[in-house]
Amino acid sequence: MTIRYPNGKKYVPAQQTGNRQKTNLSFSNRGKTLEDELNETNDYYLANDLAVIHKKPVPIQIVHVKYPARSAAVITEAYFRSPSTTDYNGVWNGKYIDFEAKETKNRTSFPLQNIHEHQVDHMKKVTEQDGIAFLLLKFTSLDRYFMLSFEYFEKKWERMLAGGRKSITLSEVEELSIEISPGFNPRLDYLAALDSLLKKPETETIERQENL
Amino acid sequence: MTIRYPNGKKYVPAQQTGNRQKTNLSFSNRGKTLEDELNETNDYYLANDLAVIHKKPVPIQIVHVKYPARSAAVITEAYFRSPSTTDYNGVWNGKYIDFEAKETKNRTSFPLQNIHEHQVDHMKKVTEQDGIAFLLLKFTSLDRYFMLSFEYFEKKWERMLAGGRKSITLSEVEELSIEISPGFNPRLDYLAALDSLLKKPETETIERQENL
Repeated sequence: MTIRYPNGKKYVPAQQTGNRQKTNLSFSNRGKTLEDELNETNDYYLANDLAVIHKKPVPIQIVHVKYPARSAAVITEAYFRSPSTTDYNGVWNGKYIDFEAKETKNRTSFPLQNIHEHQVDHMKKVTEQDGIAFLLLKFTSLDRYFMLSFEYFEKKWERMLAGGRKSITLSEVEELSIEISPGFNPRLDYLAALDSLLKKPETETIERQENL
Repeated sequence: MTIRYPNGKKYVPAQQTGNRQKTNLSFSNRGKTLEDELNETNDYYLANDLAVIHKKPVPIQIVHVKYPARSAAVITEAYFRSPSTTDYNGVWNGKYIDFEAKETKNRTSFPLQNIHEHQVDHMKKVTEQDGIAFLLLKFTSLDRYFMLSFEYFEKKWERMLAGGRKSITLSEVEELSIEISPGFNPRLDYLAALDSLLKKPETETIERQENL
């Protein structure tokens, strides 16, 4: 599945108008992590039968567990394992959705060291199976959110592997991503953004077929 | 998506012939849990670019973490949380796959208490989003494996909620499921079984269209 991105065009949810909301959102966002915002969004999708997308539990290596009489088992020694997949996956309208969400405090670029190599491999394999893989990036200092398809991310990853820069500049992110304006509910309507992107190629295909 | 099951018909992978293998398999299976067998199968699918399906990490509530100098963070107090979704999900050929795997030592029925209510809710929502949800059941004492679509499972779950029996009898499982014969590699080829099931309705649709 090819995702065509409108160069630097911002996705604005229909219900959002004017500058007033921007000020409010900047306020309501204080202290919330991207994970909180995505959990709220996914809860909204689930409650409204729009999608079933969950964050995966953090992978833990359990070494020792105590079983006290008459109470719950206690894990007394365990270690964090590095994730072999992305954080979020699920199903939306028959489509498999898979993404990694990352925050950066950087104001001018997204550092690629935020993403593990095995996560890149995972997203590549998902794309090969006709799943939809993308990254959801938050520039916390700028309070801006972007959805970057794996297809475009991979090009910048390969640039790094070829000895190029170890980050994606903000202007590249602006050009290649679809920007998501946060809202009240859902907080980050990434599926609406994805929907508008996926509809484009279909229209083009229909036009091409009509021209045959 | 409707899954039509051949009543009690056993799915036999193409490469498997004769009785010899059955004896070997019964031997090679000793001590392996269903989780081990599914991890092996999913590793095979991944390595051969057939599907990207992973077991989700066990959900843990972390209470206390120590950060010793110059070594990895240690979780010193944590508790098991009950899962809100199924254990396995992923993508296969553009399709979202979601299933729960359960073993029972019972020889005559599968007890429904093995499945949590929120897992049933999850599989229902997955089905509503056109994902493919099923249960993979292993009768350990009988060394038999079954794939039971959520559609049929749900009927038996509702029978229980209506005051009926708290299990699915083996003969019901035999009738409603597709039986999977374990192999060497992949160990439990549940996608081949699923593939043969999903192809049936399509053929019927084509036939119906031809008759129009």
